[in-house]
Amino acid sequence: MIFTNQFYEMEKYIAGLQDIICSNLESLDKIKFVEDNWTHKEGGGGITRIIQNGKVFEKGGVNISSVSGLLQEEIAAKLKVQKMNFGACGISVVIHPFSPKIPTIHMNVRYFEMENGKSWFGGGIDLTPYYPYPDDFRFFHSVMKDACDKIFPGYYKEFKKECDEYFTIKHRNEMRGIGGIFFDYKDGSETKYFSLVKSIGNSFLQAYLPLIKRRKSEKFTEEDKLFQLIRRGRYAEFNLIYDRGTLFGLKTGGRIESILMSLPPKVKFIYNYIASPGTPQSEMMKLYQPQNWIKN
Amino acid sequence: MIFTNQFYEMEKYIAGLQDIICSNLESLDKIKFVEDNWTHKEGGGGITRIIQNGKVFEKGGVNISSVSGLLQEEIAAKLKVQKMNFGACGISVVIHPFSPKIPTIHMNVRYFEMENGKSWFGGGIDLTPYYPYPDDFRFFHSVMKDACDKIFPGYYKEFKKECDEYFTIKHRNEMRGIGGIFFDYKDGSETKYFSLVKSIGNSFLQAYLPLIKRRKSEKFTEEDKLFQLIRRGRYAEFNLIYDRGTLFGLKTGGRIESILMSLPPKVKFIYNYIASPGTPQSEMMKLYQPQNWIKN
Repeated sequence: MIFTNQFYEMEKYIAGLQDIICSNLESLDKIKFVEDNWTHKEGGGGITRIIQNGKVFEKGGVNISSVSGLLQEEIAAKLKVQKMNFGACGISVVIHPFSPKIPTIHMNVRYFEMENGKSWFGGGIDLTPYYPYPDDFRFFHSVMKDACDKIFPGYYKEFKKECDEYFTIKHRNEMRGIGGIFFDYKDGSETKYFSLVKSIGNSFLQAYLPLIKRRKSEKFTEEDKLFQLIRRGRYAEFNLIYDRGTLFGLKTGGRIESILMSLPPKVKFIYNYIASPGTPQSEMMKLYQPQNWIKN
Repeated sequence: MIFTNQFYEMEKYIAGLQDIICSNLESLDKIKFVEDNWTHKEGGGGITRIIQNGKVFEKGGVNISSVSGLLQEEIAAKLKVQKMNFGACGISVVIHPFSPKIPTIHMNVRYFEMENGKSWFGGGIDLTPYYPYPDDFRFFHSVMKDACDKIFPGYYKEFKKECDEYFTIKHRNEMRGIGGIFFDYKDGSETKYFSLVKSIGNSFLQAYLPLIKRRKSEKFTEEDKLFQLIRRGRYAEFNLIYDRGTLFGLKTGGRIESILMSLPPKVKFIYNYIASPGTPQSEMMKLYQPQNWIKN
């Protein structure tokens, strides 16, 4: 299949972004990313970069991939097209810091192109904190708003709502974290969406680094840590039951270890945990519901 | 809805079995089960008994439930019947010992009855060990064979195969553990299936207690423990992505904490873990594929 220039530009963009994100995170910890290169059986491949057992970062992945091939039967059916060639590239980032005072963050932007000329963008960034620092959350959302609304006013409001819905653990009626922005199936022929994807990719460090720097030397209690481990359990619960990207990847023969790098390093599943009233943990629990963090 | 006598007999059977299993497990540890009673909004309810932070048992649940109501739309569609009243009762047991030398075990037997007179039994027992003790596994499977084949010769062979298939983590082509027996949709009007269910329920302690007693005082290494935590991660992976009972329960408004008691207490998700060749762990990895543990 012959790709458009936009596809190659997206490939270049995500490769550059991977480098920038990795080097910036490395500068905050005394540990380096380890790199695994892999190839996809039909075409293309990826570069998985993993950080593990750092002082700041307990586990994280900054992965890019660009694969091509023939659409699988059920995917073609879902897209309502014939089986045809496609190409898909993107970057996925998940960072699980050791300290419960620093939130887990997830970012993904992706581009998909088909032989019939149809293409689209998708992506987003969302935050999963374990300690109630509303100022940090407002700051994070304000960076998201800037990244979206500078492309088109009103995008933040729309994508924030989509994010709140997407990252809800439906059987618990509770969000995985405090949301962010999320969008999918945005027409690849509209250049504003490529701009949007780049604006979001570029906002990642701007949104996350200040939160790390502000909180990395803060003390925390055993209760803070326990709560983080339990909420990481909910993170795993969401990713394995609901996350479309995870399930799609696993069921279509994606590289398992690259997909599941998103799972937290250590997790606790405790029967019927309820945060004690009046604790920071019980405050945090209230924030796992959609909030108006900033003025739309 | 008016239930058959068999329904009430099954209710009585599982209540008795819950008592026997709990008291036998308690006698091996210095900790008691904690009980939660709950009611189902449409009718019936359950008794959840949980053990946590024992010396032998890190986490476990021995739960019974008996609920009734109107079939949900999609379930009626799946069963190819009109929406009608139903009743379902069963017992679920999951035990996660602290020591990696003692396997995790899971048992479930259940009975389902509908207004139109149709009914069926399902259930099984399977073992998830973390250390290669083939003698223990052969013993476990021989108890399973006796429990099945004394009802009808050949059942073990059939249900062992179903179990190997059911408890496979498909994207990894690897089993959760070393299997056991599994069956579903067995016609409730045939009394042999009620006998089968009771035979299996009664075999639980017979299969498990000797394994606990044999291994509970054995030492283990850090590597043994790490491997257990990682395999527990696979246990969570299987239950949250593939286990029909878990997903069905969560998506139809079942009691979340009773359903998710099956998740291991502590888990590690490590990027690209590979057991070193020549270690017990690498031996154990080979056994997570269907084996002929005993002569059929």
